[in-house]
Amino acid sequence: MEEIRENKIEGRNAVMEAFRSGRAVDKVFVLDGCQDGPVRSIVREAKKHDTVLNFVSRERLDRMSETGKHQGVIAFAASYDYSTVEDILALAKEKGEPPFILLLDGIEDPHNLGAIIRTANLAGAHGVVIPKRRAVGLTATVAKASAGALNYTPVAKVTNLGQTIEELKKEGLWFVCADMGGTAMYDLDLKGPIGLVIGNEGEGVSHLVREKCDFIASIPMKGDIDSLNASVAAGVLAFEIVRQRGC
Amino acid sequence: MEEIRENKIEGRNAVMEAFRSGRAVDKVFVLDGCQDGPVRSIVREAKKHDTVLNFVSRERLDRMSETGKHQGVIAFAASYDYSTVEDILALAKEKGEPPFILLLDGIEDPHNLGAIIRTANLAGAHGVVIPKRRAVGLTATVAKASAGALNYTPVAKVTNLGQTIEELKKEGLWFVCADMGGTAMYDLDLKGPIGLVIGNEGEGVSHLVREKCDFIASIPMKGDIDSLNASVAAGVLAFEIVRQRGC
Repeated sequence: MEEIRENKIEGRNAVMEAFRSGRAVDKVFVLDGCQDGPVRSIVREAKKHDTVLNFVSRERLDRMSETGKHQGVIAFAASYDYSTVEDILALAKEKGEPPFILLLDGIEDPHNLGAIIRTANLAGAHGVVIPKRRAVGLTATVAKASAGALNYTPVAKVTNLGQTIEELKKEGLWFVCADMGGTAMYDLDLKGPIGLVIGNEGEGVSHLVREKCDFIASIPMKGDIDSLNASVAAGVLAFEIVRQRGC
Repeated sequence: MEEIRENKIEGRNAVMEAFRSGRAVDKVFVLDGCQDGPVRSIVREAKKHDTVLNFVSRERLDRMSETGKHQGVIAFAASYDYSTVEDILALAKEKGEPPFILLLDGIEDPHNLGAIIRTANLAGAHGVVIPKRRAVGLTATVAKASAGALNYTPVAKVTNLGQTIEELKKEGLWFVCADMGGTAMYDLDLKGPIGLVIGNEGEGVSHLVREKCDFIASIPMKGDIDSLNASVAAGVLAFEIVRQRGC
């Protein structure tokens, strides 16, 4: 079904070539202290593309390496290309629907990210927005867990989730974040152009992002433990939005 | 939080001891053709406890072995003890609530099983029923993915899910299974004593189990792919039941 590409790239030429070909590179690991020409070029490319750069020890690179020939540089490219927030808005417009976007504030587990992209597709959301840092990107595991949804549902990666929320508010979107201690989701009006914000698996929605949301929606909890799995919570809230929109 | 026990047991004495101590043994792998006294005793115990028995090659046992000293026998015990269907009904009675049970028709992924037990706890379900065969048991991975819910929500393992449904019908439960082509879940009356049946990740609910259900509930799907992740679907349906029950 989906085309899944290898995403660990080792060695100076291979990493440089990935940047030159326009592939979406999520992260670059560079040997700390290495200052020769080719490595400096890679660092420059990474900065130009706003790619996350990590300077690490030789031991760490050796452990990460599969080929044993990393030459001081290992990059992780996305298995899928990223879309933009504009693409997502354009898709909503094309379908003649009020925008419905899922924003993930630091989902780290690739199975959760894949399951949420799958949910976004089936709930009729127009796209998913993820942050560049402290979050998993579109790896092969994510693609597999999305069960093909990555072929249809655009995923945009942004530098600052709070800033993206501000920009989308100008497009008329309201933002609701999933958290404890908010209003029961059944009592909120979740129709119209909406952004649903789902927090990190352990820590929930970050303070800065939460502050920018218009509402806090809570799933009514009756049990003994703290919270649902992040992809389950995203599913329950996304389909409450579907219910309110009238399927 | 939860106590997670090692669940791979290798060697004749250790496996025999697990049976004698009353531990819940999910599966036993025995060297094919091995007929000596101790092995015959283990096979007898396994049959007595209705444990799944597999006769396999030495190569397979060697691959499964961590100690390298399996002596022709490896057992997998549950990391948690199983409850019974009676325990689950008793819990509902104790809480003075109409029974709400999740029945899983062959969930294979331990992360899904853990997430569903977590959902069951938070949706106020009184327990989870899983089949003995072709399904994952209460492994350490399941316990971890349940985020502590296994300490509170009873999980019963039954030989025949269809038969358990018949028995629970006598207790007044109605059964709804999640599948495509059914009635939209919003249009079904999901109040009262209920069993929610969730199917296998790939194949959905089996024909025999589906036949015994009173209703087929469908989540309205708007996307391009086939189905939600099994634990997400379980969450969406469980919280529709919560909504209809009036939180």
